[in-house]
Amino acid sequence: MSKPSSQLQSIEQALEIGQAPPRELETDSLLLNKPAQQAHWQPTKVVLLLSIATILSLAVLAVTLHFLSLHGEAVTSSTAQQMGVFPLLTDDSRILCSMNGIIAEGEKSCSCYDCWQGKDCSVGTDIHQCNITADSGTPLLFEDYWLAHPEAEVRVRASFHQGYGGPLPQLEAAIRALHAQVGNAVTDGRQIVIGMGSSMLITAAMYAFSNVSRTPGVQATQVYSAIPYYNGYAWPAAYYDTRLFEWTAGAAPVATAEDPVIEIITAPNNPDGAMRNKTIEGSFGVHDHAYYWPQFAPIPAPVAYGPSDVAIFTLSKLTGHAGSRIGWAIVGDESIAALMSDHVARASGYVQENQLRATHLLQYVLGDYGSVIDYAREHMQHRWERLRTIMATSMRLQMQILEAAQYDSWTQTMSSPAPAYVWLQCTEPRDQDCYQAMLNEGIKGRPGPAFGAGAEYNRLELLMQPAVFESMAAKLELFVAN
Amino acid sequence: MSKPSSQLQSIEQALEIGQAPPRELETDSLLLNKPAQQAHWQPTKVVLLLSIATILSLAVLAVTLHFLSLHGEAVTSSTAQQMGVFPLLTDDSRILCSMNGIIAEGEKSCSCYDCWQGKDCSVGTDIHQCNITADSGTPLLFEDYWLAHPEAEVRVRASFHQGYGGPLPQLEAAIRALHAQVGNAVTDGRQIVIGMGSSMLITAAMYAFSNVSRTPGVQATQVYSAIPYYNGYAWPAAYYDTRLFEWTAGAAPVATAEDPVIEIITAPNNPDGAMRNKTIEGSFGVHDHAYYWPQFAPIPAPVAYGPSDVAIFTLSKLTGHAGSRIGWAIVGDESIAALMSDHVARASGYVQENQLRATHLLQYVLGDYGSVIDYAREHMQHRWERLRTIMATSMRLQMQILEAAQYDSWTQTMSSPAPAYVWLQCTEPRDQDCYQAMLNEGIKGRPGPAFGAGAEYNRLELLMQPAVFESMAAKLELFVAN
Repeated sequence: MSKPSSQLQSIEQALEIGQAPPRELETDSLLLNKPAQQAHWQPTKVVLLLSIATILSLAVLAVTLHFLSLHGEAVTSSTAQQMGVFPLLTDDSRILCSMNGIIAEGEKSCSCYDCWQGKDCSVGTDIHQCNITADSGTPLLFEDYWLAHPEAEVRVRASFHQGYGGPLPQLEAAIRALHAQVGNAVTDGRQIVIGMGSSMLITAAMYAFSNVSRTPGVQATQVYSAIPYYNGYAWPAAYYDTRLFEWTAGAAPVATAEDPVIEIITAPNNPDGAMRNKTIEGSFGVHDHAYYWPQFAPIPAPVAYGPSDVAIFTLSKLTGHAGSRIGWAIVGDESIAALMSDHVARASGYVQENQLRATHLLQYVLGDYGSVIDYAREHMQHRWERLRTIMATSMRLQMQILEAAQYDSWTQTMSSPAPAYVWLQCTEPRDQDCYQAMLNEGIKGRPGPAFGAGAEYNRLELLMQPAVFESMAAKLELFVAN
Repeated sequence: MSKPSSQLQSIEQALEIGQAPPRELETDSLLLNKPAQQAHWQPTKVVLLLSIATILSLAVLAVTLHFLSLHGEAVTSSTAQQMGVFPLLTDDSRILCSMNGIIAEGEKSCSCYDCWQGKDCSVGTDIHQCNITADSGTPLLFEDYWLAHPEAEVRVRASFHQGYGGPLPQLEAAIRALHAQVGNAVTDGRQIVIGMGSSMLITAAMYAFSNVSRTPGVQATQVYSAIPYYNGYAWPAAYYDTRLFEWTAGAAPVATAEDPVIEIITAPNNPDGAMRNKTIEGSFGVHDHAYYWPQFAPIPAPVAYGPSDVAIFTLSKLTGHAGSRIGWAIVGDESIAALMSDHVARASGYVQENQLRATHLLQYVLGDYGSVIDYAREHMQHRWERLRTIMATSMRLQMQILEAAQYDSWTQTMSSPAPAYVWLQCTEPRDQDCYQAMLNEGIKGRPGPAFGAGAEYNRLELLMQPAVFESMAAKLELFVAN
């Protein structure tokens, strides 16, 4: 949906003083009542895009300098310092690390990004020799943005939340307001269950649906996800050895009243970015929408599920604050919401500090109309352009075929998906183990079998720092040309 | 152990810049190498004690005013405002609430403590009519202390811990340094496992010990705790319906290689404050030491366990920050520590914000030599003096017999236990259901059967705000005189 500034300003004001946003902003009707297409780009967005362009130019320059050292002569000057410009950044540590590293909290020296080294990370390693780690989904993509927005810090008073606490009402209000602003989920008439990370909430959903569906002592509820699936889904049943539910590998089960099934539908999917729908009729649906934000996919309409389904979101892929472990579920059925909350309370209880910080961050995102989303979206679009160019002529690697561009209510344009991962297939006989073949050339992905797929597949993350992405792109060019 | 100021200052300095404390401060030998008895009371402690005395006087005055309204004439003036003094407090919200309530984070109006009412909490309710909730262990006892120490706040930068994170090394260093300063646990040669609350770590210990001991598919490892036990211990096995371990109610099991047993030993015990030891030979021991701090018990010597036992602590009962969900385990066996960390990683992952705040709070406690411990200790000693006086002549209620005073290395004096709960037994036939009898007179405890004990028992918490404790004491006086 579009972003009517006066109304949203009032949400922000309401949140600032800890009240719930006006109810009428949460209704489905408003979500459907789209105003005429009109771009509401603030002047700050222009500055932002210029800054992004500058950063991208810097990154390209960095890679160019890498190529100057293709035969082993390492670059010894600092790219960023040569440029004399530090767009978007206000944190000294990045400058001290030549834009190619960061001084982590509590540390005294630079941690250099992959393919950079030296005390101040100013030395580019030979691109043939250096290694890129792209096997996780750690969203460092967002780091520069938040370094440039130190005003979004949060202060936690010494006396804050003495005593136990539950879910923060202000966080719930901010979550509802943000979904309304972005237009990716209907929250009206549904409950928000906050958890310590979306993984906890996926486990909580398995716990809740199995509790209401299984016949105790007879049959565990089956948990299923179509191949290729995120490998974390198999863990909860396995590691705790529960009688409540069990992971079903292989063929899709049939859901009946006696043999209930929980289907996990990841949309966009991890690893391949497909916008999935439920495949098993009569199953309970756990819709993992970690990546259903404008930076990764066009948002044609908000998701809105019935009582047999829950939608799961996470702060991690929205703002990059993965270390906060903040996830939430949108739940239509009250008893399912109660069981999910019960799981959170018993597993860890409700940490207050990360909820407080998430509230401030979401209020910040609401207050400036999602400039962090635009920031991440521009980067992701650039990365996929770069990948398309690299892969266009490749006989050695194929990447997933993305879905066609469609209307995106966030940008009010036709927009192409830009998934968080590229799902590669090695096509030549010498690369039967695609993961190993790429690892041999210094690119560490996550192998296809981890997603229930064949060894000819390999997943690379695309959420790294800009400098790391550009190094990886350079190495991919070498790989496909080899 | 005593508190050599120069060495501890250097720990504090080391922690401030994120380094580990000097190794020699963590050794067992130092813990045993006690200097001659000598009190190291800083001038700030004298001020602190005077302030505590003032607060206690205020609380007593508040109760006196309550008694003026015994026949229903409510007190309408503000005790605190009449006194014109607000010791220890710098937070406006307490003043606005007449010292008898607080404006919670994000709220606009006072939440009055039990037995106080009105917009500014200045109206004392008839002590006969009002109700005291003493059924939890929420440590609001510490609230005034932290309101008076706003400098212990923590600022979380917008860019802090983008990306996932594990346990914070600075937090581990602060935990080790604090145990050395307080002298209640040996950490040298042992690992620290940080978890999101001590309940998670107790579950993690069950998970770890059952994984290394049971025969899969044959027998779940039994989990046992002697009566009376904290009722939360039975939950992990029950709610997740795991095949790994099962809660054993009733008679103590015998531990064998085929039938392994995990014994949970709470010392001091919840609900009765007893300093327990392991009772089942050959069992794995999970020692819940939430209350093994000088405010609740004399500390004659640090605990130091072997590889079949773990010690569990929590921030909640040390500084009162229960809402942070920070607990830690001291673990001698590396494989047990690895399994426990695995549980934390899978259950929630490592939240960074609460770890950052806990680090700052523990550094604060280290830096001023535990004035929060002294603060809480003085309050707890006062509360038990008050209880002893009330119960001395009672034919209706008996409280637990506390262990004898013993040498306490923290105060370097002989010191009596001052447990977090009073464990009451109703002795008259009319009070067969002790919980209900007390509830009928406006005191809500937690019934004996919740701890595996009889209905003649009832537990009251003693961790509430000073004003609430004094109201409860007044109601107890009425109860025993009735």
